[in-house]
Amino acid sequence: MAIRVLQVGLGPIGASIARQVVARAGFELVGGVDLDPGRAGRDLGVEVSADLAAALAATRPDIAVVSTSSALERVAATIETCLAAGVAVVSTTEELSFPWRERPELARRIDEAARAADRAVLGTGVNPGFAMDALPLALSAVCERVDGVIVRRIQDASKRRLPFQQKIGAGLSVEEFHAKVAAGGVRHVGLAESIGMLASAFGWNLDSVTDEIWPKIAEEPVASPDLSVKAGDCSGVVQLGLGKEGEVVRIRLEFEAYLGASESYDEIEIVGSPALKSRVEGGIPGDLATASIVVNAIPRVLAAPPGLITMRDLPPAHWWPGNPTAPPPGAASASLRSI
Amino acid sequence: MAIRVLQVGLGPIGASIARQVVARAGFELVGGVDLDPGRAGRDLGVEVSADLAAALAATRPDIAVVSTSSALERVAATIETCLAAGVAVVSTTEELSFPWRERPELARRIDEAARAADRAVLGTGVNPGFAMDALPLALSAVCERVDGVIVRRIQDASKRRLPFQQKIGAGLSVEEFHAKVAAGGVRHVGLAESIGMLASAFGWNLDSVTDEIWPKIAEEPVASPDLSVKAGDCSGVVQLGLGKEGEVVRIRLEFEAYLGASESYDEIEIVGSPALKSRVEGGIPGDLATASIVVNAIPRVLAAPPGLITMRDLPPAHWWPGNPTAPPPGAASASLRSI
Repeated sequence: MAIRVLQVGLGPIGASIARQVVARAGFELVGGVDLDPGRAGRDLGVEVSADLAAALAATRPDIAVVSTSSALERVAATIETCLAAGVAVVSTTEELSFPWRERPELARRIDEAARAADRAVLGTGVNPGFAMDALPLALSAVCERVDGVIVRRIQDASKRRLPFQQKIGAGLSVEEFHAKVAAGGVRHVGLAESIGMLASAFGWNLDSVTDEIWPKIAEEPVASPDLSVKAGDCSGVVQLGLGKEGEVVRIRLEFEAYLGASESYDEIEIVGSPALKSRVEGGIPGDLATASIVVNAIPRVLAAPPGLITMRDLPPAHWWPGNPTAPPPGAASASLRSI
Repeated sequence: MAIRVLQVGLGPIGASIARQVVARAGFELVGGVDLDPGRAGRDLGVEVSADLAAALAATRPDIAVVSTSSALERVAATIETCLAAGVAVVSTTEELSFPWRERPELARRIDEAARAADRAVLGTGVNPGFAMDALPLALSAVCERVDGVIVRRIQDASKRRLPFQQKIGAGLSVEEFHAKVAAGGVRHVGLAESIGMLASAFGWNLDSVTDEIWPKIAEEPVASPDLSVKAGDCSGVVQLGLGKEGEVVRIRLEFEAYLGASESYDEIEIVGSPALKSRVEGGIPGDLATASIVVNAIPRVLAAPPGLITMRDLPPAHWWPGNPTAPPPGAASASLRSI
C-alpha cells in the first residue's frame, strides 16, 4: 500500500517534492497545504487548502512534508499541528536538521510533542542534511580517529534557476549585497546545524561556532543566460562555517555559489587516520537532491522510534524502488512500524 | 562504562581490530580466542584461549568480534556459540555481510539464533560492508531514480603488506595463477554479497549474479619493495562482479589490485537522476578501514534490534569519540539498548 503524503508548502521546493511523490511508485500525494491555495495545485491532481488542520483531518496522511520556511521558529507550530493529528513529519526547514545546539528549547518542545504523539520528526535536505553532515559521518565509518572535518560545496550558479542566482546576490553592488545580508535575504541557512551534528557525533565540545558571509566580487564581467554582472559587482556568495574547540578548528565548512565558478564540486576531507578525501565532480544538484532525499527519508521516518530525530539516527535513506514498505529480509523488519 | 569486547580470531585483521579496541576509549578488550593461543596475545595484554565457550563464560563480553574466515559455513558455529552465551557479534566474514541471497539457509539459521538470543549479528568491513554497498546506498539518498550502480576499487598493491601481494597472485605465472584460483587462494570474497545488498535495497530482481576473475598480466617488469614480477607474469588480480536483470546490467563492481597500478582510487557511479560520480583519491586503505568500521559498528550493533542485520539496516556507523555509549540527544536514545 502506498504511503499517504500531505505536502505543506508549495513553493519551488515543496512543489518539486510533491511532483516526485506523485511520480514515484509507493507514494501517494493526498493533498497540499499553502497560504495561497491556488498555488501549484492544478498540476498535482490534489486539492490545495489553506487550512492545515482541516487538510490533515480530510486526507488522513501517514506523513506531512513541511517546506514552508528555513526558520524553525516559524515552522514549529505547523509541525505540532501535524503531530497533534497523529502524523509524522519530514521537513526541509534547515534549522530543524540539527536544532539541538542552536535552538535547544524548540528542539525539546518538538521532541516532546513527537514522543507524545508516538511519531518521528526529521529535518533533512541536501544541505543541511547530507552533503556537509550525514555524508561526512558515513565516510568516517572507516576511520580509527577523526581529528577534523573539512567540507567544500562549490557551485557555478550560472546554471541554476534565476531565483537562486538572485538569492545569492549575483548582480548586486557590494553595498546592495551587504544590505541584503543585513535584511536576511542572502545567507545559506544550515552551516551551524551541520557543525552541530558533526560535533555531537564526534564528541567535540565546541567553544565557538561561526558562520561568516562575504560577497564574491567579479574580477571580470560574468554572465549567466539570465543575468549579467559587471566587474567589481557581486557574482555570488562565499560562506564559511567554523566549529572550534579553543583555537583548534575541528570543522570547516566552505560554501561558495557564484556565477563563473570554474568548476562545481562537493568535497569532503576527513583529517584523521586514515585521512580521506572524497569528491563528487560536478557537485550534487541542490533542488533535485533535496526533493529526493526528503522522499527517500519518508519510509525511514515512518519506521523510526518516536521523537525528533536527525539524519545521524537513521539507516541510509537510500533510493527506494516501487514499494518502500516491503520489509527487507532479516531483523530490520522488526524496526519497521507497519503503516 | 566501556564496551567489553572479545576478539575471536587473531590473524592480521583480528589482531589489528584487537589493537584498535585496546587503544580506543570507550572500548575494553577483555580477551582473545584463537586456535593458536600463543598468537598475538602478548602485546594485547589479555589472555588468549583456544576455547571459545570458556572464554565467553570467563570474560562475559558485551560483544564478540569474529575474524576467523571469509566463509560463512566455517563461521556459523562460532557465531551460534556467542549467541548461545547471550553475546552480540560483529564479524569480518565477507559472506556474512549480506548472506540473504547467496546463502539464505545459513542466513535464516543465524537470524533465528540471534532473535532467540535477543542479540544482533552484523557482518561488515571495508569491502564488502562499505566501499561497494553501504556507501553507494548512502549516496543514492539524493536520487529520485537509480537505474544502475558502478563501483570501481582500484589499488596499487605495491604499497600493501607482502601477504596481500601474495594473496592477489603477484609474481605468479599465468598458469600458477589459475591453479591458485582453482584452489580458492586468490579470489576477493564479497562481490556477490555487495551485489545482493544493492539489489535488495533497490528492488532489482536479478536473474544472474556473476563474479569473474582474471590475472593482471605485467606488460613490463614491475616490482614492489618485497617482490619482483617479470613481464608476462601476473602482477595481481582483476575481478568483475555483475548483477543483471535479463540482459540489463544493474550492478557492475570492478575490483583491481596489482603492482604498478598508476593510481589507487574508489569510485562510485550512480546511473540515474541525478547521475552522480564520487571518488576517493588514493583509495580507502583496506586493513585499517576494515578494523575501524568493525569497531565503529559495535555501538550500533548493541543498539540494534535483535537478528541478523546488515549495514543497510544501521544508522551511520560513524567514528565514535571517547564514550560511544553516551546517548545522542533526542529520540535516538530510545533505540539504544543500555549495556
